[in-house]
Amino acid sequence: MSATIETRKGYAPQTPATLAAYLSGIPAVRMILGGEPAQWRVTEVGDGNLNLVFIVKGPSDGVAVKQALPYVRLVGESWPLPLSRAHYEHMALTEQARLTGRLVPAIHHYDEKLALIVMELLEPHIIMRRGMIAATIYPKFADDISTFMARTLYFTSDLALTAEKKKAMIAAFAGNTALCKITEDLIFTDPYRVAELNRWTSPQLDPYAARWREDVELKVAVSRLKLKFLSSAEAMLHGDLHTGSVMLTPEDTRIIDPEFAFMGPMGFDVGAVIANFLINYFSHDGHEERPGERDKYRERVLAMMEQIWTGFRAKFLDLWRQNPTGDAYPPSLFAGEAGAAALEAERQAYMDRLWTDTLGFAAAKMIRRILGLAHNIDLELITDKDRRATCEARALTLARDMMVHTGDYTSIVIVAEAARKVRSEMKSY
Amino acid sequence: MSATIETRKGYAPQTPATLAAYLSGIPAVRMILGGEPAQWRVTEVGDGNLNLVFIVKGPSDGVAVKQALPYVRLVGESWPLPLSRAHYEHMALTEQARLTGRLVPAIHHYDEKLALIVMELLEPHIIMRRGMIAATIYPKFADDISTFMARTLYFTSDLALTAEKKKAMIAAFAGNTALCKITEDLIFTDPYRVAELNRWTSPQLDPYAARWREDVELKVAVSRLKLKFLSSAEAMLHGDLHTGSVMLTPEDTRIIDPEFAFMGPMGFDVGAVIANFLINYFSHDGHEERPGERDKYRERVLAMMEQIWTGFRAKFLDLWRQNPTGDAYPPSLFAGEAGAAALEAERQAYMDRLWTDTLGFAAAKMIRRILGLAHNIDLELITDKDRRATCEARALTLARDMMVHTGDYTSIVIVAEAARKVRSEMKSY
Repeated sequence: MSATIETRKGYAPQTPATLAAYLSGIPAVRMILGGEPAQWRVTEVGDGNLNLVFIVKGPSDGVAVKQALPYVRLVGESWPLPLSRAHYEHMALTEQARLTGRLVPAIHHYDEKLALIVMELLEPHIIMRRGMIAATIYPKFADDISTFMARTLYFTSDLALTAEKKKAMIAAFAGNTALCKITEDLIFTDPYRVAELNRWTSPQLDPYAARWREDVELKVAVSRLKLKFLSSAEAMLHGDLHTGSVMLTPEDTRIIDPEFAFMGPMGFDVGAVIANFLINYFSHDGHEERPGERDKYRERVLAMMEQIWTGFRAKFLDLWRQNPTGDAYPPSLFAGEAGAAALEAERQAYMDRLWTDTLGFAAAKMIRRILGLAHNIDLELITDKDRRATCEARALTLARDMMVHTGDYTSIVIVAEAARKVRSEMKSY
Repeated sequence: MSATIETRKGYAPQTPATLAAYLSGIPAVRMILGGEPAQWRVTEVGDGNLNLVFIVKGPSDGVAVKQALPYVRLVGESWPLPLSRAHYEHMALTEQARLTGRLVPAIHHYDEKLALIVMELLEPHIIMRRGMIAATIYPKFADDISTFMARTLYFTSDLALTAEKKKAMIAAFAGNTALCKITEDLIFTDPYRVAELNRWTSPQLDPYAARWREDVELKVAVSRLKLKFLSSAEAMLHGDLHTGSVMLTPEDTRIIDPEFAFMGPMGFDVGAVIANFLINYFSHDGHEERPGERDKYRERVLAMMEQIWTGFRAKFLDLWRQNPTGDAYPPSLFAGEAGAAALEAERQAYMDRLWTDTLGFAAAKMIRRILGLAHNIDLELITDKDRRATCEARALTLARDMMVHTGDYTSIVIVAEAARKVRSEMKSY
């Protein structure tokens, strides 16, 4: 957290009243909305933690407008946050669009001074987390998210880029420190110590929170992950790839909100997705009206999680085989049959290392959602605190084991099996 | 290699004739030299691969002047190289001076436009490599170089810096891509494939060069190291820390020429020093006039190598214990007796991982000096090609084993022992 609220010449937070006038000055947006500004309906809908979000509808069509505030919306002016995050979000969105096409919203306009992005209005898409809480089936998601991760991570890595291009990307994202610091503090540090911002289901989970703060094995493990987050510039990360950063319908998936983007360790993005599926898996015991009612959906969540990792792994490997254009592992070193076989074995070993990272980061993400500041509505919407605490205790227990005994989890199938086991064996928090 | 020779407004390569006039315009330098420009003696002494180097002596004192050329001096205009390397060298020198004081030459003046640094004239210092070839004893070196590495690496890492400061350094050095590319190509790639620039003692080592190009285990190992070099931004590296980048007397050590500086994996610097000691160890069989004449010096080289690593490890650990100011491993997570013990164990584990990296990078550095473009005079000055090839074959054999069976080398003592064993067992190339 920086000390003071940023000011910027030409910056002013928009209101529904000012926004229509502003948008009417942008021909491309005017064309999309159609009619006259007086006919446009503007509503502020931001329910995230950080920004203003408006939906603007005209006679022809609509747009979404996202504007950064110079502070954390959820907390207020006491927690300043730089406007530059819109710059990084725009840069990441542009790169993601180039690499994945329609898996991100189209950008209609970007205003650096106003820290404001006008983008495609996604309708009738909803936030995935809400859909999963309601046990909605998304048959395309596993395929889409594994494509998104494989393409954005592969093509911004040393496997695909020259060192020169890669270093230019590192420099371009290096300034997004304030957003990275949120991750560093809230995910890798605060849940493991007494911190003002921590919260958890209390008093039920008080013993867990206390044990987690004393668990030196866990604290060493999470600190190693933090070091990796700080020093491994493997690829351009989305940086906040949870199910709240996905808007979708059963037919169409869009990944939004990459303002935490920077060049970091790939396992952080992949782990975020896995973590959110595991949390959702455990949460249904708090949502179902009679025990077992959601057994089928629960199993579907685990099956999707398996498909996401196996799909990601297969697609990433395939991109590597098809596009060995980077400075790492130059094809000229691996000519001939023996070379090809050795390189293929190394590709598999590379994915195994990435799997290990993924497990650790997934565990860190699960823990922070239960013992840290920012929680998931998957769990928060469970009103019965005892039931919620039981779901949470199961997630914590699995996450701790994944982080400390990473080597035991040799495949995603074993993770799914462990989740089932924890759920069936832990009767209560 | 970029395609064209860089031009820059205001840049012109200096000559002894122009340099005195230029320096006379810099009051600080004028004061050091004393007298009038007409009394100054300017000589060009550059014997390195890349730059112009002048020594200027006046009635009072002297200075050294280093100027980048827009191409590789050794090769000529067919190999362009950006002038910006003087910028990165100046930045690294400044940082190293802040962290290590008199272990680097003092900077008197820096001219960005001319890509020129005026610095302390080191007299009667000589290039360490020449001193070691002559079996000169340097009683202070192990202590000085281990201090240099411990302080420059520790204080530019996530263990000492905030993430914000660290990312700013990453961005500041990210543009030094042309120099990094030299390392990427000449160390991690070319020696393992047919490349125009490769050379070796031929025909004696032809079978070695051929075997190295076919050795898939080795090529996978060196490619993993290259990936680490490309993606691990652990600390500010010197980037070219061989015994040719050291000027010294038995009493005084100075580290020069950090134009390859960037934020990379620490083991690369430490490995460079170890590699150069091993090469020097093997080289004395080519220099001694009767067998065994240099036995004592040889053992001294291995003893210094051991002191360098053990000194580095102890000093780095101590800096960590005394200055835990970085965002990695925050002390607040490791309060209390159990926390302190766990953190200390993790510090040791951290150094073990760094040791593994060091071994691999050391091996890569040894191989490139024998099968790649740039060789060491330790070996090149051996005129009898059979004797030279035997020294080189031993170094190659040890290096290959270190890189492929890294796990067998659990300590620096074992590396020294392995060097002795290879030397005594391999009678000829």
